[in-house]
Amino acid sequence: MQIKSLRGKDFITISAFKKEEIEIILNTARRLKEERRMGVKHEHLQGKSLFIIFYNRSLRTRNSFECGIMQLGGHANYLDSDKVYTPAMEGDEAAYSTERVSDVANVLARYGEGIAIRIYGKPTNWVYGAGNRYIREFARCADIPVINMEDDVYHPCQGMADLLTMQEKLGSLEGKKVVISWAYSPSVEKPIAVPQSMALGTSLFGANIVLAHPKGFDLDEKIIAKARENIKNHGGSLEIVHDMAEAFKDADVVYPKAWPVLSCLPPFNNKVDFDTMKNMFDENKNWKTTNDLMKLANPNCLYMHCLPADRGLEVTDEVMDGPNSVIFDQAENRLHAQKAVMVLTM
Amino acid sequence: MQIKSLRGKDFITISAFKKEEIEIILNTARRLKEERRMGVKHEHLQGKSLFIIFYNRSLRTRNSFECGIMQLGGHANYLDSDKVYTPAMEGDEAAYSTERVSDVANVLARYGEGIAIRIYGKPTNWVYGAGNRYIREFARCADIPVINMEDDVYHPCQGMADLLTMQEKLGSLEGKKVVISWAYSPSVEKPIAVPQSMALGTSLFGANIVLAHPKGFDLDEKIIAKARENIKNHGGSLEIVHDMAEAFKDADVVYPKAWPVLSCLPPFNNKVDFDTMKNMFDENKNWKTTNDLMKLANPNCLYMHCLPADRGLEVTDEVMDGPNSVIFDQAENRLHAQKAVMVLTM
Amino acid sequence: MQIKSLRGKDFITISAFKKEEIEIILNTARRLKEERRMGVKHEHLQGKSLFIIFYNRSLRTRNSFECGIMQLGGHANYLDSDKVYTPAMEGDEAAYSTERVSDVANVLARYGEGIAIRIYGKPTNWVYGAGNRYIREFARCADIPVINMEDDVYHPCQGMADLLTMQEKLGSLEGKKVVISWAYSPSVEKPIAVPQSMALGTSLFGANIVLAHPKGFDLDEKIIAKARENIKNHGGSLEIVHDMAEAFKDADVVYPKAWPVLSCLPPFNNKVDFDTMKNMFDENKNWKTTNDLMKLANPNCLYMHCLPADRGLEVTDEVMDGPNSVIFDQAENRLHAQKAVMVLTM
Repeated sequence: MQIKSLRGKDFITISAFKKEEIEIILNTARRLKEERRMGVKHEHLQGKSLFIIFYNRSLRTRNSFECGIMQLGGHANYLDSDKVYTPAMEGDEAAYSTERVSDVANVLARYGEGIAIRIYGKPTNWVYGAGNRYIREFARCADIPVINMEDDVYHPCQGMADLLTMQEKLGSLEGKKVVISWAYSPSVEKPIAVPQSMALGTSLFGANIVLAHPKGFDLDEKIIAKARENIKNHGGSLEIVHDMAEAFKDADVVYPKAWPVLSCLPPFNNKVDFDTMKNMFDENKNWKTTNDLMKLANPNCLYMHCLPADRGLEVTDEVMDGPNSVIFDQAENRLHAQKAVMVLTM
Repeated sequence: MQIKSLRGKDFITISAFKKEEIEIILNTARRLKEERRMGVKHEHLQGKSLFIIFYNRSLRTRNSFECGIMQLGGHANYLDSDKVYTPAMEGDEAAYSTERVSDVANVLARYGEGIAIRIYGKPTNWVYGAGNRYIREFARCADIPVINMEDDVYHPCQGMADLLTMQEKLGSLEGKKVVISWAYSPSVEKPIAVPQSMALGTSLFGANIVLAHPKGFDLDEKIIAKARENIKNHGGSLEIVHDMAEAFKDADVVYPKAWPVLSCLPPFNNKVDFDTMKNMFDENKNWKTTNDLMKLANPNCLYMHCLPADRGLEVTDEVMDGPNSVIFDQAENRLHAQKAVMVLTM
Repeated sequence: MQIKSLRGKDFITISAFKKEEIEIILNTARRLKEERRMGVKHEHLQGKSLFIIFYNRSLRTRNSFECGIMQLGGHANYLDSDKVYTPAMEGDEAAYSTERVSDVANVLARYGEGIAIRIYGKPTNWVYGAGNRYIREFARCADIPVINMEDDVYHPCQGMADLLTMQEKLGSLEGKKVVISWAYSPSVEKPIAVPQSMALGTSLFGANIVLAHPKGFDLDEKIIAKARENIKNHGGSLEIVHDMAEAFKDADVVYPKAWPVLSCLPPFNNKVDFDTMKNMFDENKNWKTTNDLMKLANPNCLYMHCLPADRGLEVTDEVMDGPNSVIFDQAENRLHAQKAVMVLTM
């Protein structure tokens, strides 16, 4: 099958790429990782700039991009959204404090070679999908690649790092039981992008996906439909259960983390209803990953988390720091996966 | 005519340089632009640092400096004024939160090769000229070049980018009708530096300048006097009108944007009078650039704006995004002009 | 004597190193300084990243690290603690706004080659020693070097720059009278780390140290004990006086600056008592360095200050800007000393 170059492409969701293209990115990541370990000097992005625009906090994403492009000879301009004229969609503008997205995108495209954006939650008034629309508007206007550093729907860079990690540890995902589970957090503000990108990624590679969450905590049905379509084309299966223990039984991978109740957010609800969401969360405090739960899984089962984790609430320290945990390998792979995306698209 | 090197010189206003020196900077900008397009690797500023200190928001200035010095092998240290001990003039100091400008300047001069500063408006209590005095105090103390990234009087980097853009599009400015016009904005907080630097720049190159604004919106009379002196030496003309349509007629360049009413600000007034200014602004909402106005101009007339623009208020989307608009070329030339300034002075 | 490599070592306090190791760092600093002056291109840290995490303001520290690593081919990621999930000790965590130090340290160690931290005062609720514990927790968890950019006990980078400066000016510290003095400031918020690191550094090199402060302004007794131990091993002396003029008499070096009253802070007091401290400060406004005081010292006596200084309060302009002042050489040596630390440990 013929693969066109990825040069100039936006990287907004894994589902915009063919399986073969995702494999090219993963292979490039493995190669860059190996060469870095060997001390090979990289100049793939010499003199090139990536603008990294953050509307939300970040440790891993920001530092893996900043270190990543620097290791390749380029530089990331870290932009707090409130230190530039805040990019705004048409109709949301305010004189001399915002600037229309099309203008921001067009200008940045004259100075550098890529734009990366993180936006979800409060800066978009918790309207599910608004962050993604914002990133797509940047992509529509800029003639340089736009990279999604996590919006309210997708976190494709995390998804790539997760695939890379599972392939490193398990060889192939084919026939492996991969559990994407909800877990309790006192904060209802965490986005749903990570499990959704996990579902989109693993469904390309023949995994038997088990989605576990309390009733009412469903993922976006469009994501589920896309995952089912992937499974039809590439094998594997997708099952939804409402019991953590049932899900963990014989699992090869567990990935339990908090995500919001979509039905409490616009456009699914007519207003943001955090009270109902908080109650639904609090009724499910027992959705915590413990050693007892881990014992139900395959002994070599990978415990995954995108971090930051609410230790003692989403998961016990024992599990986080235990022998099954691959959380820091996973965090490291953010670096290599994103370097691959940058090297191939910018 | 003999030109001494620009090495070590401050870049605070175009009017501090001879026409021949401005031409050297423009030629250098053109060359760096061409070489970048060809992929020539640049190491002119290898290992060199520019401190970029911002008291106000910035998209273009910050990113063009950060990308620009990186493309030349160096690095810009982005400094929010509230993350360092805020540099303060003698007499404005507060224990352990400010630091005297002379100390800041002397220290930074030991670490890096240039200091660039943006300061106007609120951080200087709207006293016209105070931002410029602050930058000149840095220049007096530091024995490395100080670059003005926009103060309350001058925006020389924008001025250079504007000259570069006009020369690219028109060949020569000689005999061209160049309109610098006021335009309406709901914000009275935009500085007057851009039209003033435009007047100082174009008056060196034989343009027929038409300054258009409602009565009472005069530019600083010292700037006008300097422009007239330039015209005496280098040709061209300067006319002031109070009607946008009259100004636009047969224009080769129009550059309409909001600027404040100087007579409402100290030292011209005994206090900051935004109420009067706001009223004067609101009486002139019709100073908006539209396609109808553009039809009065030369068909190839350049529409220029330094950005950000208040779309729908200063100018219609039609004009901003229309065939006469050169706003993104202009924004891009910030990069090349500033790279030239850095390469020649640092 | 055999010296093992410093590669991989943390740099948290001068007192964790043998005199020979401190000398290696100083020699490396001198060499890097000389080579920079000659324009030698440095690539010691090519492709390497240092994370610089700030809980407090900084001018010198931040810019000397940012410029320093860049001059060596690497890059510093400037991290405001409130832009990442704030690193928190176990027990101080808050869902989705903090992240446990061990997780932050482990993740950053996967992306870059060093972590530098500044933390004291307000972010640690003024509990003396809490900032240092925090940095040591980072060091315990990260398998890359951790550098102390000033905590509530130590400022080893300043200490190294101060040693370098005194050696450059005086040749050897042996038998020299070095005065570390308190001075008045209206702010009680300045840390005590600088005089403590000065005492730890100079006591390794045979200086006759005179510690001068009003009664009740004692340095941490553990620091004094360590300095006395150094003196036993390496020569010199340590005397404590409560009169500035007595201290300045025949001094070769004076280093007068404000520091807090430890007995007003936990754990020495059961609460933070700024009222008592402020009163104690205000009773000692006469502890100001003036030309009259300087006349008591050796004519070539060095006036030192880590900056920022409260001009007119800690010290007069005459002294700061006078012939004995070496403040900017001292500030410059921050750059060279820290480059040496990075080159040797990272």
